Amino acid sequence: MVECRAMPPSTFLRALRREPVPHTPIWIMRQAGRYLPEYRKVRDRVTFLELCKTPELACQVTVEAQAALGVDAAILFADILLILEPMGMGLTFEKGEGPVLANPLRDASRVDGFRNVDPREHLGYVLDAVKLIRRALPADVPLIGFSGAPFTLASYMIEGGSSKTFVETKAFMYREPAAWHRLCAKLADNVGRYLVAQVEAGAQALQLFDSWVGHLSPSDYREYVLPHTQAVFRALPPGVPTIHFGVGTSTLMELMSEAGGDVIGVDYHQELDQAWARLPGKGVQGNLDPAALFAGRGFIEQRVKRILAQAGGRPGHVFNLGHGILPGTPVDGAKAVVELVHELSAR
Amino acid sequence: MVECRAMPPSTFLRALRREPVPHTPIWIMRQAGRYLPEYRKVRDRVTFLELCKTPELACQVTVEAQAALGVDAAILFADILLILEPMGMGLTFEKGEGPVLANPLRDASRVDGFRNVDPREHLGYVLDAVKLIRRALPADVPLIGFSGAPFTLASYMIEGGSSKTFVETKAFMYREPAAWHRLCAKLADNVGRYLVAQVEAGAQALQLFDSWVGHLSPSDYREYVLPHTQAVFRALPPGVPTIHFGVGTSTLMELMSEAGGDVIGVDYHQELDQAWARLPGKGVQGNLDPAALFAGRGFIEQRVKRILAQAGGRPGHVFNLGHGILPGTPVDGAKAVVELVHELSAR
Repeated sequence: MVECRAMPPSTFLRALRREPVPHTPIWIMRQAGRYLPEYRKVRDRVTFLELCKTPELACQVTVEAQAALGVDAAILFADILLILEPMGMGLTFEKGEGPVLANPLRDASRVDGFRNVDPREHLGYVLDAVKLIRRALPADVPLIGFSGAPFTLASYMIEGGSSKTFVETKAFMYREPAAWHRLCAKLADNVGRYLVAQVEAGAQALQLFDSWVGHLSPSDYREYVLPHTQAVFRALPPGVPTIHFGVGTSTLMELMSEAGGDVIGVDYHQELDQAWARLPGKGVQGNLDPAALFAGRGFIEQRVKRILAQAGGRPGHVFNLGHGILPGTPVDGAKAVVELVHELSAR
Repeated sequence: MVECRAMPPSTFLRALRREPVPHTPIWIMRQAGRYLPEYRKVRDRVTFLELCKTPELACQVTVEAQAALGVDAAILFADILLILEPMGMGLTFEKGEGPVLANPLRDASRVDGFRNVDPREHLGYVLDAVKLIRRALPADVPLIGFSGAPFTLASYMIEGGSSKTFVETKAFMYREPAAWHRLCAKLADNVGRYLVAQVEAGAQALQLFDSWVGHLSPSDYREYVLPHTQAVFRALPPGVPTIHFGVGTSTLMELMSEAGGDVIGVDYHQELDQAWARLPGKGVQGNLDPAALFAGRGFIEQRVKRILAQAGGRPGHVFNLGHGILPGTPVDGAKAVVELVHELSAR
């Protein structure tokens, strides 16, 4: 456990390991984002991709967001899709439309043509950002590295962007199962090596985002996803705590837990206690509805109290939203949730 | 039970009442839709709203779809949002963007200004369509009437259209609970009277679409939705079987069942047997992933077999997709699922 040699013990890392902590740690998915004036100031000068690819700026927005909110962990500023570019997919971000992958994968014969990534050579800017951030953060604030999971990455490759229905992804998966499995095995291998490289650069915890896997049934998850996600977790260095996250995954909790992760993300569709009861031996991360941050401090306090009561002080709870913070969120709401979690969970 | 006086017993209506049936009945949500050439031919001449408001054409697409697929029930061609127009919301459908509600409701003081609807006076075109369809359909094919549920209607009024996050709806609900409850009570009253009028015009079963309620947590559902949905079901005439449908509702199944409905819709995120185990005393409708229809007859057959095996021949299963049929669905896929359900479930 790398950080123990050089740094003071962190509430966040101890919670990920289900050790007792003095208060429930909190961070916020997409905490360095549009809702934050510091972030918008940087984005006025550069595009989203330029920001991702300029380690100094990625470092700046990461560190500023952590400091502005007072959260217990920082997460690397990057995008889950960056790994797809060196694999051979053109990646752009259109204003208001999110990611666009050029020439979406619809033909099974293209699967074997995607390149394997050397993280140092092809994603050096991410690793440089990790190193800068680790140096710039307070010593007791851990840095989370991350990547998209094979299913979610494959879905972007096939849909060519976000989707409401994931019908192209599923049609590919159902019609070309052999090519699907080759694609996901390749993605798992590359994601695993990318995450290892992030740890070597200084990331102290990892989150695997399988953001859209909640669009599958449990039987589809078992057949088309589980082995590949498992391969990613097996490739990670022992001792680095891991979080496994998805949205709309309430029917997949047991399977995601089986696939891997010390802590499982619980989105806002579920009550935290009910979800945790289905995850023996795991910690949980979540699960405030991001919309609650729009409703004022009194309302946020009620919701924080309820979630903390559901967690019941058990070791292994990391407070977070159930999904990424929304663009128009009042900064006061984001700050309030951090303060309230610290205050109301203090033991 | 109106239909028993005039018509032969229907497999579909018997299944809704959990009586034994010779085969599992099937219909397809949005079966009269874009994927069907007969439908596109009519839509080449009129807009979506014109189609809804021309009883002869609404009748034509309803009856043609039922005949083309050989499904066991027809569903009235209409839109869940039609009731909002006479209540005072401007409603248009933009090409490729779905419904647009003019001047979205963001100010609690507007709630009391929405009008109560007289279904005969304000939605006569829907009731005329019901009458025409009932006369045009084969006697043994029941007609399903429907409406949006209070939450889903309120969400469109507040968002002004579809939403990914429902943040405006939730912010309204959280910040203005009294106005929210007045709005939903008014919607429930109007929806209830609208559905009663559909039954009086000839609808033999009813489906309440709470399409987007799956964006709420169970505790939010109980607090903000359940009493209003319950009020709708309580307003319906006894003896008319009802279906209660939503998407992404796997954490809400017990609560939706408590709110009402003889049969609960099970979307494609769940395994049918696991969902049914949580719904004692209810039938279930579902739950093939709409994407499966893109994958060829052999694949569809596997999936139909699995769902029928999960249903285990218990009375009360109505086969359907887990959500509406998708625009690009191959017609052969839609026909195949109907044939296969009939063939493989024959007792």
